Amino acid sequence: MRFARHGAPGQERPIVSGADGLWRDLTPVAPDLGPDLLLRTEAELDLLRLPVVEQVERFGPPLPRIGKIVCIGLNYSDHARETGATPPEEPIVFFKAPDTVVGPEDEVLIPRDSVKTDWEVELAVVIGTEARYLDSPADALAHVAGYAISNDVSEREFQLERGGQWDKGKNCETFNPFGPWIRTADEVPDPQRLGLRLWVNGELRQDGSTADMIFGVAHLVWYLSRFMVLRPGDVINTGTPAGVALGSPDPVFLRAGDRVELEIDGLGRQRQTLRDAH
Amino acid sequence: MRFARHGAPGQERPIVSGADGLWRDLTPVAPDLGPDLLLRTEAELDLLRLPVVEQVERFGPPLPRIGKIVCIGLNYSDHARETGATPPEEPIVFFKAPDTVVGPEDEVLIPRDSVKTDWEVELAVVIGTEARYLDSPADALAHVAGYAISNDVSEREFQLERGGQWDKGKNCETFNPFGPWIRTADEVPDPQRLGLRLWVNGELRQDGSTADMIFGVAHLVWYLSRFMVLRPGDVINTGTPAGVALGSPDPVFLRAGDRVELEIDGLGRQRQTLRDAH
Repeated sequence: MRFARHGAPGQERPIVSGADGLWRDLTPVAPDLGPDLLLRTEAELDLLRLPVVEQVERFGPPLPRIGKIVCIGLNYSDHARETGATPPEEPIVFFKAPDTVVGPEDEVLIPRDSVKTDWEVELAVVIGTEARYLDSPADALAHVAGYAISNDVSEREFQLERGGQWDKGKNCETFNPFGPWIRTADEVPDPQRLGLRLWVNGELRQDGSTADMIFGVAHLVWYLSRFMVLRPGDVINTGTPAGVALGSPDPVFLRAGDRVELEIDGLGRQRQTLRDAH
Repeated sequence: MRFARHGAPGQERPIVSGADGLWRDLTPVAPDLGPDLLLRTEAELDLLRLPVVEQVERFGPPLPRIGKIVCIGLNYSDHARETGATPPEEPIVFFKAPDTVVGPEDEVLIPRDSVKTDWEVELAVVIGTEARYLDSPADALAHVAGYAISNDVSEREFQLERGGQWDKGKNCETFNPFGPWIRTADEVPDPQRLGLRLWVNGELRQDGSTADMIFGVAHLVWYLSRFMVLRPGDVINTGTPAGVALGSPDPVFLRAGDRVELEIDGLGRQRQTLRDAH
């Protein structure tokens, strides 16, 4: 199934789509999405009895109350290489605050005083059940409810040249477009075989595969569970492949009016227009 | 006023204390605390008509739904010096996820495989109204609802020797004891004149003053508002003075059974016992 939310910002209503591909209204089941709903079956939801939504309005973020967003840095060797970094020996971990999340087609704001706003298409993992001190990566995927797209928007000067910890360049307003939907894990049998692509103003800039992750999803969930408790509704942004502005010898960062599009196989497509923060 | 929550974990009820020092039940006003309540006056709450609570049960964290916890690193020059770091030219920013928060007298868990669990007494700032691109530090304190104590518990190996970004050593389960209460900003006329102290097993280890912050509260709120939106209910942990284990030439980190006590002038006292995570 695919789970999403549609409607005006702050007033989104939950929808779901099963085998027939139609979007259906989930409000008869629950007023909004939560990680518990992502774990139900089509039969448990009595999906075919839910009213069909003829016209999806704006997609909002497909989860309303994300607990935390854990981000992984330099998790594709081609991206590590392009930024001049050594591939990490173990996952690099930083955070995005959930209030950076916007819908997949919402505007992204270039922060005031920014000169290096950059893009990053990433596979987002949505946690379904608590993962705490897992014994092995083999136990990890059972804790994943589903997958979505994140644009891990980054201000490189804030991230790298303003005090050393990356979070400063990762938490600007609107810096995490998320969605359009969460596809449940049963429909993503191998999260390490997904193509992911990103275009800027129509030009393909990132064209990678999750096969090239240094640390795959199962490893990441297991690894993180040794340092923190992953809870239902938490999200992991699993890193980005090569092709970001920072990796170019002659980088051109984002400017107001630029259009960014992102897609991951089976997870839909995002489209954002950049605008200056006022 | 002082705002707090008491009761069993997950079932805390809000209480408030005004000029007479008595704790009173806030549930006739609201089922739980939120940043909006922190902004009301005694008259608006009709405080003296609220029923007196004879016996405060366990103090829980004094805010139930923290949006994000922004932490400042190396913000006291004596602490920067003891860790061998150069005092920063601008604030160092990292994050704690709100699900690390526990009450001020709850157990703190030493993570599995930890050998360097450390303490940090810190002044916590609670945001009352949205702060976004503030023009100057002079505008900042108007956005502060109140102040509390945070113990910014840290695993130094995870923080510093496992991939470079500090968040990995800052987000372990139970790593942010918070409270016992939030004192409203009107009762803290100068947040840069507070003594803060921490004991381990009865021995005074940190004995500082917020006067020694490199970047004061007003500067921090203004500065952060240029990189992210600070929202009502967000918390800033403003850094720790000298005296942590990491700063000792012969460091002794925390072990199961150790007792840590923290206090800040006017903000009460925390007491935690360490236990191994199982």
